Amino acid sequence: MSTVVMKFGGTSVGDAGKIRAAARRAMRARRRGHRVVVVVSAMGDTTDHLVDLAHQLHPSPPKREYDQLLATGEQVTISLMAMALEQMGAPAISFTAGQIGMVTDDVHTKARIKRIDVARIRRELRAGKIVIVAGFQGVTESGAVTTLGRGGSNVTLVAIAASLGADVCENYTDVDGIYTADPRIVPNARKIERISYDEMLELASLGASVLHNRAVEFAKKYRVPIHVRGTGTERKGTMIVGETGEMERIVVSGAALKKQLARITLRNVPDRPGVAAKIFHVLAAASIVVDDIIQTETTPKLATVSFTVDLPDLPDARRVCRRLCATLAGMAATFEDDLAKVSVVGVGMRVHTGVADRMFAALAKGRINIQNITTSEIKISCIIDRAEGPKALRLVHDAFELGRKPRAARRAVKKAATRRPARTSKR
Amino acid sequence: MSTVVMKFGGTSVGDAGKIRAAARRAMRARRRGHRVVVVVSAMGDTTDHLVDLAHQLHPSPPKREYDQLLATGEQVTISLMAMALEQMGAPAISFTAGQIGMVTDDVHTKARIKRIDVARIRRELRAGKIVIVAGFQGVTESGAVTTLGRGGSNVTLVAIAASLGADVCENYTDVDGIYTADPRIVPNARKIERISYDEMLELASLGASVLHNRAVEFAKKYRVPIHVRGTGTERKGTMIVGETGEMERIVVSGAALKKQLARITLRNVPDRPGVAAKIFHVLAAASIVVDDIIQTETTPKLATVSFTVDLPDLPDARRVCRRLCATLAGMAATFEDDLAKVSVVGVGMRVHTGVADRMFAALAKGRINIQNITTSEIKISCIIDRAEGPKALRLVHDAFELGRKPRAARRAVKKAATRRPARTSKR
Repeated sequence: MSTVVMKFGGTSVGDAGKIRAAARRAMRARRRGHRVVVVVSAMGDTTDHLVDLAHQLHPSPPKREYDQLLATGEQVTISLMAMALEQMGAPAISFTAGQIGMVTDDVHTKARIKRIDVARIRRELRAGKIVIVAGFQGVTESGAVTTLGRGGSNVTLVAIAASLGADVCENYTDVDGIYTADPRIVPNARKIERISYDEMLELASLGASVLHNRAVEFAKKYRVPIHVRGTGTERKGTMIVGETGEMERIVVSGAALKKQLARITLRNVPDRPGVAAKIFHVLAAASIVVDDIIQTETTPKLATVSFTVDLPDLPDARRVCRRLCATLAGMAATFEDDLAKVSVVGVGMRVHTGVADRMFAALAKGRINIQNITTSEIKISCIIDRAEGPKALRLVHDAFELGRKPRAARRAVKKAATRRPARTSKR
Repeated sequence: MSTVVMKFGGTSVGDAGKIRAAARRAMRARRRGHRVVVVVSAMGDTTDHLVDLAHQLHPSPPKREYDQLLATGEQVTISLMAMALEQMGAPAISFTAGQIGMVTDDVHTKARIKRIDVARIRRELRAGKIVIVAGFQGVTESGAVTTLGRGGSNVTLVAIAASLGADVCENYTDVDGIYTADPRIVPNARKIERISYDEMLELASLGASVLHNRAVEFAKKYRVPIHVRGTGTERKGTMIVGETGEMERIVVSGAALKKQLARITLRNVPDRPGVAAKIFHVLAAASIVVDDIIQTETTPKLATVSFTVDLPDLPDARRVCRRLCATLAGMAATFEDDLAKVSVVGVGMRVHTGVADRMFAALAKGRINIQNITTSEIKISCIIDRAEGPKALRLVHDAFELGRKPRAARRAVKKAATRRPARTSKR
């Protein structure tokens, strides 16, 4: 008897009707003979409503209490889901994180799971029940409620699947899979059948919002394949799996656009050991995630350091940098708030050449100025003006023929690589 | 250093502003040097909203899940209250029932408290924190969430106060105390300064809704005085305390009207041992609370049994009784749904005479027909037509001069007792 763990996000449990639809899916899996665990998020905009209440009472709510508050959202959904299942004739039981010993560290609002006591879940599954678990939440050793941060329900999904050694791990959401690019911007974007954890990690951190990195990292670590699929359809979605040799035949799997990017440039930074470390330590301490750092020497003793941050973090970053400038004589900061980042991702880049070249050519054809380039083993990113973002994404998507089936796309890139090799193969 | 436990009901924490006002009260008590524990209910109509959601998914929701759902209401309030206090500069910490080991039996939706592990509360109080506890909820030995039934938050209040050996136990609500009658019906109703547990128990079961019986029983058992007072005022409310000799000088403390009463009459009930027991066993099994039972013999072998139920229970009671009639040949049931019950309560009845007489005279003067009379040591109730209810309450209230200060009222009754003694003194 195989075990299926399925997760329904907030929009998939947004009202009683949707909860019932999700329950029917769990029922069908059970009828097919599976043991079924369901992980749920808070209903629709419940969390926003709670956050709003909190901010009416405290400008920056104490984190322990914030978690105590937010965790109620998922607790509402689990009990309603259990009721829906019982009404359909399936015995069901709901659990908060505390009730199944999903123990985390005590870093409130972004806690990390330390262990799950799955004995209770197994017992209820053996008794024939559908087990419903509250996503996004955990509990400390001393019993305080924690939450797992953005994408936390997916972390719960993967953690439960890993702990149970589940055969299938399904992430139901309002889109029916991972696309080669955001279909709202690129009309001919195509659903990807299989994608590797690493590609998904890159895409997620580059702006694809279906799955957040922590869940994918967790899945990669415990080798849990995730099936991302649509709530409203029976069709297969996208499998996120370990990398296979086969995958390298596809050069570029997807393209992504990060629309809300800001850049900070610090000039006259004393070029001596420890200064850069101090700057980024202070930014990290303010919980600002920094990306794409470039340091250039302007004089033998002074450097220019620039880095990007997500636009919503700019006000905080601005404050921190101004404070830094006040302590380091001569240092000055400038801020840009109108940037975007277009990227392509694919494990095939490790063995195929000509990718960067092809990307630059596509942007040049559209007269889009590239302000900066960053690369990793499996991605290339270009920072551009925000206004050019959607056009850039469409151009890049077309250049790699992502709208066509993989085999065709592969031939197209091979041709390009033959024509003008611009990037050296890594093996 | 004295300990104060204060409780705020749903209307007193109905929005962010009201939570802030409640927090200010807790702050003031703390500034006066008290250790403060705050018990809260769910905000305003949160519970109704959750109940509605539940019933959209299940006509009679499984009770374990129902409790799991409803308990979130209080969890929201405790965390918001903690935020409000922190914002005012008072260190605060919130606890669900599970987090302070408020262990109950596993009778979901009306669980009874078995024990509270107050060590954690004491530790936080010693550390200078205001401790906030979720009312209405408990947790079973195995970690399932329970709720304590109607008036459950007051049970929590009293249980916490008793366990801590608190000096003051304050119940803040939207009325500023217990009145001699419902002021919405009787304009000259007067706030009672002190009332005994037993009088409060009678009044509560007769329709006064400020405090429910379980909380009062609990308070009586553990000798916890409860101060019922208004959220919007600094004035003293009503103290609910153990009975004193002094109290017996007041003959009648209050009058109450139960507006929603139904009566069921079963005719041709076989008058043999066990039949009545069976009838009331079946009704109890259907969770129908039965009151004012009267059995009269009509023939040597047949009896008529009549009893009252709360009007909302009538549909259930009707079903149960029809099923009973189907199993006991010849038995027939009739149902009345238009009754009310007017009552007077007072420990002074134990030593004073003439109370019933005076009550009947008042109703007769108003040409109100008394359909049935029931008495206990400290109350007299008359069943009347619902349409006459408010008028009856006013007449009775006036007859005992409850609008005047107690000493005056006492003189009035003494006079009556002297004129025409109709009820024998119990001592």
